[in-house]
Amino acid sequence: MSQDYPTISLDEAWRRIAAAVRPLPPRLIPLAEALGCVLAQDVQATENMPPFAASAMDGYAVIAADATPSRRVIGEQTAGRQLPLRVEPGAAARIMTGAPLPEGADAVIKVEDSVEQDGWVRFTAAVPAGRDVRPAGQDVAAGEVVLERGAVLGPAEIGLLATVGRIAVLAHPRPRVAVMATGDELVAPDQQPGPGQIRDSNSYALLAAVQAAGCQAIHLGRIPDDEQALRAAMLSGLAQADALITSGGVSMGTRDLVKPLLEELGAVHFGKVASRPGKPFTFATVQGKPVFGLPGFPVSSLVTFENMVRPALRIMGGHARLRRPRVMARLSHAIRHAPDRTEFQRAVVAQRDGAYWAATTGVQVSGRLKSMAGANALLELPAGVSDFAQGQEAVAILITLPEVD
Amino acid sequence: MSQDYPTISLDEAWRRIAAAVRPLPPRLIPLAEALGCVLAQDVQATENMPPFAASAMDGYAVIAADATPSRRVIGEQTAGRQLPLRVEPGAAARIMTGAPLPEGADAVIKVEDSVEQDGWVRFTAAVPAGRDVRPAGQDVAAGEVVLERGAVLGPAEIGLLATVGRIAVLAHPRPRVAVMATGDELVAPDQQPGPGQIRDSNSYALLAAVQAAGCQAIHLGRIPDDEQALRAAMLSGLAQADALITSGGVSMGTRDLVKPLLEELGAVHFGKVASRPGKPFTFATVQGKPVFGLPGFPVSSLVTFENMVRPALRIMGGHARLRRPRVMARLSHAIRHAPDRTEFQRAVVAQRDGAYWAATTGVQVSGRLKSMAGANALLELPAGVSDFAQGQEAVAILITLPEVD
Repeated sequence: MSQDYPTISLDEAWRRIAAAVRPLPPRLIPLAEALGCVLAQDVQATENMPPFAASAMDGYAVIAADATPSRRVIGEQTAGRQLPLRVEPGAAARIMTGAPLPEGADAVIKVEDSVEQDGWVRFTAAVPAGRDVRPAGQDVAAGEVVLERGAVLGPAEIGLLATVGRIAVLAHPRPRVAVMATGDELVAPDQQPGPGQIRDSNSYALLAAVQAAGCQAIHLGRIPDDEQALRAAMLSGLAQADALITSGGVSMGTRDLVKPLLEELGAVHFGKVASRPGKPFTFATVQGKPVFGLPGFPVSSLVTFENMVRPALRIMGGHARLRRPRVMARLSHAIRHAPDRTEFQRAVVAQRDGAYWAATTGVQVSGRLKSMAGANALLELPAGVSDFAQGQEAVAILITLPEVD
Repeated sequence: MSQDYPTISLDEAWRRIAAAVRPLPPRLIPLAEALGCVLAQDVQATENMPPFAASAMDGYAVIAADATPSRRVIGEQTAGRQLPLRVEPGAAARIMTGAPLPEGADAVIKVEDSVEQDGWVRFTAAVPAGRDVRPAGQDVAAGEVVLERGAVLGPAEIGLLATVGRIAVLAHPRPRVAVMATGDELVAPDQQPGPGQIRDSNSYALLAAVQAAGCQAIHLGRIPDDEQALRAAMLSGLAQADALITSGGVSMGTRDLVKPLLEELGAVHFGKVASRPGKPFTFATVQGKPVFGLPGFPVSSLVTFENMVRPALRIMGGHARLRRPRVMARLSHAIRHAPDRTEFQRAVVAQRDGAYWAATTGVQVSGRLKSMAGANALLELPAGVSDFAQGQEAVAILITLPEVD
């Protein structure tokens, strides 16, 4: 058996993880692969955008102060080329949205306010100078920092990078995370479990959780309770990935081989946390890479992933904001809670009459994955307090953005 | 020029989209590709889970009522196999978490409450019958519906499917969405724009938005303002994808070829919406597939995607919940708003003192993608009302889940 580890608080566990985990070194990442990555450099514009004064409307380029009732149409300025047009008093040029404003013009009158016939146009509205003209540099000014180091690259940020001509950008890569499930009792989901066996669900749930956290998932498979096989799988995982997740094999039994192996290969930073579920959660570093030894119970492994692994992977991805939003939610029903550990009950949180209300998802035993399915929040019931009454408030950690209607 | 379309309200635009768009027919989707998909069948368990009464702890399988002070250890029951052990009064069997409970035993005493020596074990605690035993079927009962039609497949749901032996599941596939940007003025992001030209940013922003919406993005490239080229690109897009997004070419100019082409190829359901930005938004169906003609301004196209295209793609993906959550947010500063259209200003919303506060992201012109970068919300300023004062409340549409700390 492995040496016994003291039970530490969740806060202390997080401090030790945060101290051991670093952002991955930035790399040049192509725009098409950058969604969700964190920028590792300031990005500056080298030119104005628009590069020229441009029309904001389809209409006519005019001199705003010109009062000529009927003006000669001198040509049509479309987007994409620059004609040698010059607008003088008494004249107007047809112009399309985004096209460069012809010399002499200082405003655009939109097509809805015009009547054109036989090469002459009359306007039903007058406009001040500058109307519907986008001055050069209105969107982006040359020299402007358009995105700062630390920016998370969403659709708008990726559009901005394209605008300023960056087709690849220095950013933190998506962490590669290898996942294995351990245990002689595990069979593949498409197999019929024999006596004493169960299907492996943790591999699939954790691979999905890794992907949902914006990381690249690597499946190492099911590893039996055999020291040689475990060692080989761990070393293979560490060779391919930036972080390793195991599930199972971290309790106190004679077959719990994960902790002793981690002690041999690297340093174990803790082996027990005052959390329900998730007490036997183990954290180690091997070859400078984090190894998360998750409990084998399906709910325990996913809750621990959510509370501890996901924020660590976000550090590795270069994120500054690591945690889900928390709201105070009123309880739709009373909840029993033992004060010895911090407990995370799975819940559905909904807004009603301007307040958040939480209802738990039935029986909360650690094996019952159904308590996690459909949940959009974890209720955090702190150590040191006892049962919660109906209507009482508790902290709800929102794990998915609740879409509505 | 295209025929003129009346300006319709956002509500009416959405009604017409929702009436024309259907969930994609369900398909058998492998578990490894199912993250984020919507289940199209009820999934029932055919067996109990655990399939046998199992230990919830590492410890000893005992008879709870047995008061024998020192009990003979008759063997070790590990997970993954079933030994022919039988626990009788005066005996105990070593047992590991997840292992089947030996015949005769009715409780588990955890290893922390035991002292074993020379084949005999003494316990420092007594337990009631059933303690730390997971009865067969506790997590999932044979015949139970573990997931219902309509469930969104997250990590826990995928774990549940593995548990009940489903390696593929009937679900709505991820919509394939083809994206093109139109306009003679567009050059690739890695090219230096010539006179009158700008870089294409919309393709990249929209491809990222499509991916972020959980869909498969197909890039059709930049298409010049040429009817033949546009027709060919549209038909190619529709052949490859379930939906088509164009940007640009939907204003009122002589070069706005998208609407006339959509009229020729299919049915245009509207061509103008009372929205700022996003007025020239056009919606058509061609060959039974939706075509979203987005405006060419970068912010207009992304805001319209968010408000109108994303919910439509969610319908196609089989989702019942289509829209982002909305909260009432107090304005950190006064906002000018013209009452003629519903306006969507980009904003950063943060929680402070139990309330949401919103600040807009600077100049809100439609070309300024920087107003969208870093924004986590759209402020919806309705038609029919005028300017908003500092401290006044407005509806904020939360477009990203704001991570904290």
